[in-house]
Amino acid sequence: MAKTNLFYAQSGGVTSVINASACGVIETARLHKTRIGKIYAGLNGIIGALREDLIDTGKESAKTIAALRYTPSGAFGSCRYKLKSFAENQAEYLRLMEVFKAHDIRYFLYNGGGDSQDTANKISQLSLQQGFPITCIGIPKTVDNDLPITDNSPGFGSVAKYVAVSIREAGLDVASMCESSTKVFVMEVMGRHAGWIAGAAGLAAEQEGDAPHIILFPEIAFDKQNFLRKVKQCVNRYGYCAIVVSEGASYADGSFLADAGGKDAFGHTQLGGVAPFIASMIKQELGYKYHWAVLDYLQRAARHIGSATDVDQAYAMGKAAVEFALAGKNAVMPTIVRKPGKKYSWSVGEAKLSDVANVEKTMPRDYISSDGYSITEKARAYFSPLIQGEDYPPYQNGLPQYARLKKVLTAKKLQTWEN
Amino acid sequence: MAKTNLFYAQSGGVTSVINASACGVIETARLHKTRIGKIYAGLNGIIGALREDLIDTGKESAKTIAALRYTPSGAFGSCRYKLKSFAENQAEYLRLMEVFKAHDIRYFLYNGGGDSQDTANKISQLSLQQGFPITCIGIPKTVDNDLPITDNSPGFGSVAKYVAVSIREAGLDVASMCESSTKVFVMEVMGRHAGWIAGAAGLAAEQEGDAPHIILFPEIAFDKQNFLRKVKQCVNRYGYCAIVVSEGASYADGSFLADAGGKDAFGHTQLGGVAPFIASMIKQELGYKYHWAVLDYLQRAARHIGSATDVDQAYAMGKAAVEFALAGKNAVMPTIVRKPGKKYSWSVGEAKLSDVANVEKTMPRDYISSDGYSITEKARAYFSPLIQGEDYPPYQNGLPQYARLKKVLTAKKLQTWEN
Repeated sequence: MAKTNLFYAQSGGVTSVINASACGVIETARLHKTRIGKIYAGLNGIIGALREDLIDTGKESAKTIAALRYTPSGAFGSCRYKLKSFAENQAEYLRLMEVFKAHDIRYFLYNGGGDSQDTANKISQLSLQQGFPITCIGIPKTVDNDLPITDNSPGFGSVAKYVAVSIREAGLDVASMCESSTKVFVMEVMGRHAGWIAGAAGLAAEQEGDAPHIILFPEIAFDKQNFLRKVKQCVNRYGYCAIVVSEGASYADGSFLADAGGKDAFGHTQLGGVAPFIASMIKQELGYKYHWAVLDYLQRAARHIGSATDVDQAYAMGKAAVEFALAGKNAVMPTIVRKPGKKYSWSVGEAKLSDVANVEKTMPRDYISSDGYSITEKARAYFSPLIQGEDYPPYQNGLPQYARLKKVLTAKKLQTWEN
Repeated sequence: MAKTNLFYAQSGGVTSVINASACGVIETARLHKTRIGKIYAGLNGIIGALREDLIDTGKESAKTIAALRYTPSGAFGSCRYKLKSFAENQAEYLRLMEVFKAHDIRYFLYNGGGDSQDTANKISQLSLQQGFPITCIGIPKTVDNDLPITDNSPGFGSVAKYVAVSIREAGLDVASMCESSTKVFVMEVMGRHAGWIAGAAGLAAEQEGDAPHIILFPEIAFDKQNFLRKVKQCVNRYGYCAIVVSEGASYADGSFLADAGGKDAFGHTQLGGVAPFIASMIKQELGYKYHWAVLDYLQRAARHIGSATDVDQAYAMGKAAVEFALAGKNAVMPTIVRKPGKKYSWSVGEAKLSDVANVEKTMPRDYISSDGYSITEKARAYFSPLIQGEDYPPYQNGLPQYARLKKVLTAKKLQTWEN
């Protein structure tokens, strides 16, 4: 079989393990020099393909590529650029084909969420129509854990671990001081549409009274009076109340709590930040002293406390994607399959891109307690294996040493792309 | 020498290593059974002494006490209760003496910041006047690093490590996405009066272009136009701008940026949160897409990424306090002394409580760059040793296993204290 080139791109919001998938792709592809020639990565994701900004990963040492395994963020750059439908923007698709042809790229590996899998699927179809068939393989990635079919998504386990560790630690802090100081602590986590991340924070509560005492899920309509009663109950019972709130927490009418009014110093609608909103509501209604934290990017970048399970799975997905491509598979994505049995184990499965594209997996109702404020044993059984194991990066001078890439671009062969 | 009892209390805002000091105190005191009888700890700090809520640490196993070394927060409870002057509230001091007498407490070890050292000093003097001499030893603690004489304060090194790791990781995240998404990231850290914590985050910037690009110190008056120019310059040069802002950042007139207006959803003055304020200002003036994070308690509770140097020093301070007490010293506090030489090393020194009490050490101007937005090599040389080494807690089921104390109170001998 002739030797052709491979193109890998990172898509959408980055995670602390998406580079572990990149590492899996590149290390595996490098083992197949008779089949795969150049291994390109898109500078800033799919934009790199459109602009013909192709990073030649061959210029990076084996050591640097190995370091991707423990480097958070998107080392080649990522983007939120969503290709329109073929009908709407044919030119974009044709440009991609042109770049792939010019650089003899016959393997396209796209590392992202549901949108990205949709794009990869479309390119696969188009390439057949164009008579320049490209093997398109998706690689799952999303901190939101909302991809269907796969048991979980790489990126999620590490966020889950970070938020659970964080609320455990902050909870102990508040517990120490609550007799004479702060009574309520609110921690805001990601999850605009699904409560997976907020739910995982619930793992920290292992015994009666442990933080978090209340979780606010996007799946459960916020009921102010009921919530305030619960807060008061917690403070009376435990001396304090530790709350995890998903950024997507919303009222019964679907409007986000975070959008519920308030003006910033410039007279604009409040900046987001559902944690300060909730904290302020509690102060207003119950008078408790509060503190709040907003984790934002820190949670998806916190590779220093990455889940070993997550890292292993992210790497395995990258590796499997290359193996799928070489085995002649197309328009598929490797998945994580949870094996039956009490002891957690998993294997690599396979899903059609058409089945993954644009489907959002929300948290089952039976993962949330009947009162809507905590997780069930079923949820715990699901989440717990995903945060197992610590995979610490190497440190130098007290700080984690993450990969620094050269990002050498390959010579362009086409005219500049005008969007 | 007769055997008498020891009382240990935690004071003020807790840290991720104050329990390491407690561990040092208790483990060392347990080695001297002929001199020290009961080892009590105040439930919720000095309030515990006033209320006669004395935790009998003898009821805790050696294993639990050892676990304090890696447990964040104040395991016995802490408080922000500041004793008034003797003239203002004689009754409080007399109550303390009464409790100490009732339980034959002749050693008082007080683990806190400047205020606490002042209290310990006063009790020492009073006990002599009362003819019931109590050996009072301070143990330094504060994330703010503002205690004088000691080279640094236990608690600070771990916060320093956490904020430097966090901005490095978030910086990489923003760098990945900045081509098509977020251009500015603002991370808020503690430090109401001194920029030690904000400055330590600067350690993450090891090479040109590394995050953080801008640090806003309480020591430097905020100049809006100058700041905005700098932000724009960073975005133009590096594609993004990562900012660390101290909660104490303020204008030339001394007013905090965090208090600069804005109303929350309930019409109250803005909730604090200088990070959203700064982010919003940038959006307003420069139009950049932004994200922000507020670390709050997470930074001082983050024992999962504690500095090994900090943990060692915290333990050593607790141990030294007991040794000082047994050596007949009084009204002193062990300190950390940085030895001269290129390679960092330290030893235990000693300071009079009267010299420590109520003195606040701010960051020297020559630790801050001339433009006011970053740290100098001199600062780097000071900070760097304090974050060296990783001291990971043990994990079970993917989560750090922190000490759970029984906190058995000893039988009361006095009437209930009425404040």
